[in-house]
Formats: sequence, C-alpha cells, structure tokens
Amino acid sequence: MKSISEILSDSCPIFHRRHEINASHLKNSVRNLADAMHAADPSAQFAMGLWDGDILAFGAHPKTILRFKTPRAAAELFARGFLGFGECYTSGELEVEGDLQELLRLGFAIKFDDGDLPFSQKLRLLPHYIRSRNTVEQAPCNIAGHYGLENEFYSLYLDETMTYSCAYFKTGEESLDEAQLDKYRHIARKLLLKPGERLLDVGCGWGGMLILAAREYGIRGIGNTISRNQFEYANERIKVLGLQNQIEVVLDDYRNLRGKFDKFVSIGMFEHVGKEYIPTFMHKVSSLLEPRGLGLLHTIGKDVYSHVDPWTERYIFPGGYVPNLPEIVLEMGLNGLPVLDVENLRMHYARTLDRWAANYEKNAAKIAEMFDESFVRMWRLYLNTCAAGFKYGYVRLFQVLFSNGLNNELPLTRNGAPYP
Amino acid sequence: MKSISEILSDSCPIFHRRHEINASHLKNSVRNLADAMHAADPSAQFAMGLWDGDILAFGAHPKTILRFKTPRAAAELFARGFLGFGECYTSGELEVEGDLQELLRLGFAIKFDDGDLPFSQKLRLLPHYIRSRNTVEQAPCNIAGHYGLENEFYSLYLDETMTYSCAYFKTGEESLDEAQLDKYRHIARKLLLKPGERLLDVGCGWGGMLILAAREYGIRGIGNTISRNQFEYANERIKVLGLQNQIEVVLDDYRNLRGKFDKFVSIGMFEHVGKEYIPTFMHKVSSLLEPRGLGLLHTIGKDVYSHVDPWTERYIFPGGYVPNLPEIVLEMGLNGLPVLDVENLRMHYARTLDRWAANYEKNAAKIAEMFDESFVRMWRLYLNTCAAGFKYGYVRLFQVLFSNGLNNELPLTRNGAPYP
Repeated sequence: MKSISEILSDSCPIFHRRHEINASHLKNSVRNLADAMHAADPSAQFAMGLWDGDILAFGAHPKTILRFKTPRAAAELFARGFLGFGECYTSGELEVEGDLQELLRLGFAIKFDDGDLPFSQKLRLLPHYIRSRNTVEQAPCNIAGHYGLENEFYSLYLDETMTYSCAYFKTGEESLDEAQLDKYRHIARKLLLKPGERLLDVGCGWGGMLILAAREYGIRGIGNTISRNQFEYANERIKVLGLQNQIEVVLDDYRNLRGKFDKFVSIGMFEHVGKEYIPTFMHKVSSLLEPRGLGLLHTIGKDVYSHVDPWTERYIFPGGYVPNLPEIVLEMGLNGLPVLDVENLRMHYARTLDRWAANYEKNAAKIAEMFDESFVRMWRLYLNTCAAGFKYGYVRLFQVLFSNGLNNELPLTRNGAPYP
Repeated sequence: MKSISEILSDSCPIFHRRHEINASHLKNSVRNLADAMHAADPSAQFAMGLWDGDILAFGAHPKTILRFKTPRAAAELFARGFLGFGECYTSGELEVEGDLQELLRLGFAIKFDDGDLPFSQKLRLLPHYIRSRNTVEQAPCNIAGHYGLENEFYSLYLDETMTYSCAYFKTGEESLDEAQLDKYRHIARKLLLKPGERLLDVGCGWGGMLILAAREYGIRGIGNTISRNQFEYANERIKVLGLQNQIEVVLDDYRNLRGKFDKFVSIGMFEHVGKEYIPTFMHKVSSLLEPRGLGLLHTIGKDVYSHVDPWTERYIFPGGYVPNLPEIVLEMGLNGLPVLDVENLRMHYARTLDRWAANYEKNAAKIAEMFDESFVRMWRLYLNTCAAGFKYGYVRLFQVLFSNGLNNELPLTRNGAPYP
C-alpha cells in the first residue's frame, strides 16, 4: 500500500508548489488516492466526483461520495492534508454525500493523517501556535472560541446534564443522560468517594461531576473553570439544587488553585493543558492532593506521540494537545503519583459522539440561524472526525486512577473487597 | 532529610576510597544513618548494634535490630549500598534481628535504594553485565542459576500449582493455591478466553496458566520455557492430567516461536527480557497474535526508570531488568498494540511474597541441608526485599491488557456487557 506522501510525490507536483495547479496532475492524484483507499479496503463501496463531472466509483452502491467541486479543493487537500480538507469542507468547495464517517474511515485506513504539513505551511501557522500557548493569560482566550459559544448552543446537542465529555454506556442502549450520570458514578466508585470528603474537580465544565458527587456521595467540593458561561451556569444550577453549602465553582486557572483535597478528578480538561504544561499540571495535582489521596484523570489520549491535527487545533481547540499514554504515566511517576488503574473507553466516546452528532443534525437548521451554514458544516466535520478518530484512528479515552504516594489501605480488588 | 549520599559524604570518606576503613568515621556514618531513619519515621522503634558492642537505640522496644558484626560490614554497606548489604547479610557479617521487612521499610523511607553504585564498583560489575546480556544463547544460562534449582526446592515455598508469580487475592483470606488459581481466572476473564481458541503463554513456567485455561476455558495452547526443569515438569503434569491433546510446553526461546494465536499471555517472564530486548519482545508479540487478538502482560514494573538493584541482578536474577510502565506502554504503542486496561496489583504481590517467605521459613532447616546456611540467608533476603519493595518501595505489579490493532467488537465494560 502506498503512503499518502508517495501518492503525492508520484503524481502531484503541487504538494510542495501550490502555485502550479495543473488539472491533469490533480486528476491523477485523486485517482491514486481512490486507488489507495480501494486497496486498503477492497470491499468498501465509495466514489469520488470531480469538478468536471467525472466520477471514480468503486462498487455499485457507494456508501460515501467525496465531491471536489473545484480543482482548488483537490489542490488544498493534497497540499495541506486535513487542514485543506477541513477548510474546503467548511466552505463547501468539497462535499461529502452519504456517510461522512465512512469516508473518514477510508482516510484512516490509508493513514492519511500520518502526513505532516509541509514546512511552508508550518511556518504560516507558527504565529498562531506561538499566540496559542496556554499561559495563564492566554488560556481563557484559547477556550473562549469554543466554550464562549452560548450555553444554548451546547444544549442543542449535549444531554440534560450538559456534560461535554465521554459518557459510560453500561449496555449501549441507555439514554445519553443516563450514560453521562453513569460515567460520573463510574468515576465516583473508582475514587472511593465517601461522605464529607473534599473533592477537587479541575476543569469542571457545567458542574455535572460535582453535582452528582454531592448528591449521591455526600462530598464537599470545589471545581474550577476559566469559561464565564460555565461558571455562571454551574453556580446557578448548584443554587437551584440547594447544594451551595457543599460545592462551589470558581472562575480561575488550575495553576492558581490552593488548598488540600482528599480526592481529585479532572474530566476532559487535560486536552486543553498543552504539551509544555503537562509537568506543571501533574506537579499541581500532587500539591493539591492529600498524601495517599486518590485522583482520576479522564482524558482523550493517544498510544504514542503523533503531530497535532492542525485543522482541529486551528478551528476547534486552539492550544489543544492530545497527550499520549506514555507521557501521562511518565509524568505521573515523576511527580510521585503511582498509577493504580487505566481503562481505555475509546468506543464509549465514539458512541457519545454519535449521539451528539445525531442531536446536532436534528438542530442543524436552528444552528444555521444562530451562526451560518459554514459554521454548521465546520462543527459537523468536527463531531464526525472525532467519532471516526475513536473508531478507526489514533485517539483513545483513558481514565487513569492514581494515588498521591503509596497507599497500602486501598481495596485489594476493583470490586472493592477491602484490604484486610 | 539528608540523602544517603549526603550522609556518606558528610562523614564517611570511604565512600569513594574503600581501602581506608576508619572505625570512628564508620561509627559516625552508622549514627547518621540511624538518625536519618529516625527522622524519616520518628515513631519507628529500631536499633543498630556495632562491632564493639555499642548500641544505638530508638524506642524502648525495637521491632528490628541491625547488627554490624564487623567494621567491614558497615564499610561495605556505605561503599556499595544494597550490594554490600546483601553480600554481608548472606555471609552473616551483618545480622538483622526481629522484623527484617521493618528494617527494609526504614531503608526505603530514607531512599537508601536511590544511591547508585560508585563508578569503580560499576566498572567491577561491567564484565558481569556484558556476560549477562539476554541473547538467545545467554538467556538459558542467565535463568539457570535461578530456575535451574531443583523443582523440589520451589515446592518448599510455592503453592501446589507451582506458580512463581503474583497471586490474586479476592478477599486476602484464601489459601495461596486458591489465590494463584484466581489469578489465572482473573487473566482468563480479561482475555475473554473461549473454547477452541489458541492461547500462547510466553514464559509459561511450570504450566499453571495453560493447564487452568485448558481445563476451565477449553483453549488449545502452547507455552514456552527455557528451563529444562520447568519443561519436563510441565509436560509431565499435562500428561498426568490428560491434556496433551490440548496444550504443550516447548523448550525454546520466545524469539524462536512461530505461528498465529488468538490470545497471548505472559506472566512474570517479562522481567527476564532485559531493557534492550523490550522492542524485540513487543514486535514478536504483534507478529504472533492474530489481528484484533487480545494479549495480557503480567509483569513487575516501576513507575519510572531507576537503576537495576545490583545485588538482585548479581545474585538472584542475572540479566533481569524491571521495566517501567511508561516504556511498556510506549513500546506497545509503537508496535500497534493499543493498551486497553492496566491494573496495578502491587499489594497482591506483597501478600504473595509474605506467604512464600512464611513457607520458606518453615522449611529453612531442610533448605540448609539442600544447600548451605549462606544460601538460606541469601534467599531469605531476596524474598523479604521483594515483599518490602512492593509494600514500601518502587516496585509494582502491572497487568496490561492490549489488542493487536484496533478491535471494535470488544465488550463495552469490564464486567463484559457486549458491544451491541
């Protein structure tokens, strides 16, 4: 099987020289791309439509059709990989008919996402990367483009608990609300939460974990967020539920938190920390947790390092970085946080994202009114790319349980038989 | 708290110059060592006895007394750390009265094992390290000193299943035999073993896992060992149980294995692979497992890299290397073996070793007849050092479950709800 860069260098001189768009070279490249997808999965039924009406079809009943409406869309794809694909999909120069995730599956099958950006493109993005470093000052701006969107927008595709992270499906048949509450309960059980314990939730979002832990496990706790929308929404909800004497959400950076807690949790926030701040984060955790206290990190992760997808980083999560399991457990070890348990919930996130994408499509017209059609397309691509990434690509969801130093009094087994 | 090297450089010029043994300097060093232990745990009751009859006591009822019978024993300890301690304990120049593990606990509390060997000592060990590299040719010699001991010897402290790895205690009250069988069942459940599946057990020891998997799960399988004793014993047992049509043990190196298997397991063998062969091992695993097949690695591990304890490597496990979790999961990731689940069974191994040590003491007189008194002492130190290492030190027991490439059909949850 040819790699994407071989396909490109075979046939497409524009990979490094974008100014020379040559339609016949481009057609060759598209043909090679389609051939590679077919070779990777000969049973896949798919087609590619070209700007001049030509169709390359594999199978009589294509599940997915990729249409290049302009030669530029193909040129951008070949020159800038997923960054070009994403921009042209957003603008509509590139269309996917049928099953978007099936197209992405074939993309993963040929390791399309292995191709890094050419140096010239990296240079172009450099000012953005420098601007997006997650300093205490910049971090709120980095997340503002995402979490600064109105709570109403998120309510159109999240569940009623407003949980924006991987759910936990015990059977796969339950509602998204139930699966999100079960995720919080799954974490509460791993953390052995007990009444009166002090829980810290770093990056607590709209407060779902804290609220469940307060109601069902009787903890007292603090959560932090740097999104004003989340901060206001969460505290309002806490007040309505009469939990303001037990839990509170503060508007502050994790690096500014003080105090000592019995238990620690962070759900779906570590992806915003950034590679260079991973040691800072772990050191902070060890200073906030009581000795022998338990912590749980719930985060998207990779098996090994691979470059950050530039489209997602540029348009969806500025400053974002998907950490890999080796660096997570290494940094925990270096900070005296021995790993007790790791669970990979990859397929749970795929399922969560499928539910979100379905909710999203139901509300697409409303979202187009709130924003515009290109936003609708961009966010659709984001949700489906993530779902496909968990199903077929490089992303996982890790729950990593650890203690602050050794704790010899923990239960012997996962189902909680006590250490006698 | 002073580090051990600070204690040494403060008071003991022999740290780098062993030829000048000065008794008053040595006494100072012992006093500083005792002070450091007391500072690390002021409630600990312990004492040190010196060659001239002096006693340094903390508390009226010492649980453990370290006696230096000669100045040389102290000099060796300070010059060569645990290597010197182990050699002098073996020879009897150094005695521990009372609770040996309590002394080791205090040693861990002052991070005694952080002190690396001086360069001159490393140089002295260099020929040994070079000789002990785990090449296919050398590996059988490396394990011969340990597993070449008579099966009868191991039967004096292991359980009836002859299992020489961490057991799994559901309650902590069960017999060692039951806990070892439960360990195999715990692994079988994680691997989702099904009748007729082909299981490969790399480093199968005396065959315990294969036998249980054949009898209770109906698998067919192969195990390998490079110990002739284990090979003969295991196949004899398989024959007696009438399982020879299902399972077989071969006398061969893991690097020579061929074929394709549905499931893979390796229990307590990875510690013998050696750092430089970890990539070889993982690559071999990925080539022996069917795509999407599950594997489980059960191994002693550390949270992060630290130097190999030279006494254990020299006298107990030549060529041995305790891998760390970051390098294990990194190498799995690099070889397309995504991690699904990690469980740290540290306290189970502490408990297993306590059972072994108790069995061992019951048979100490018999073992002294089989070997000699210094062997009895050496092996006692080994068992107790390991137990203390799991309880208070740097060693963990990791079970790491992985698949060969992505498998989207696995159960959603640990208790096995199927992915619908």
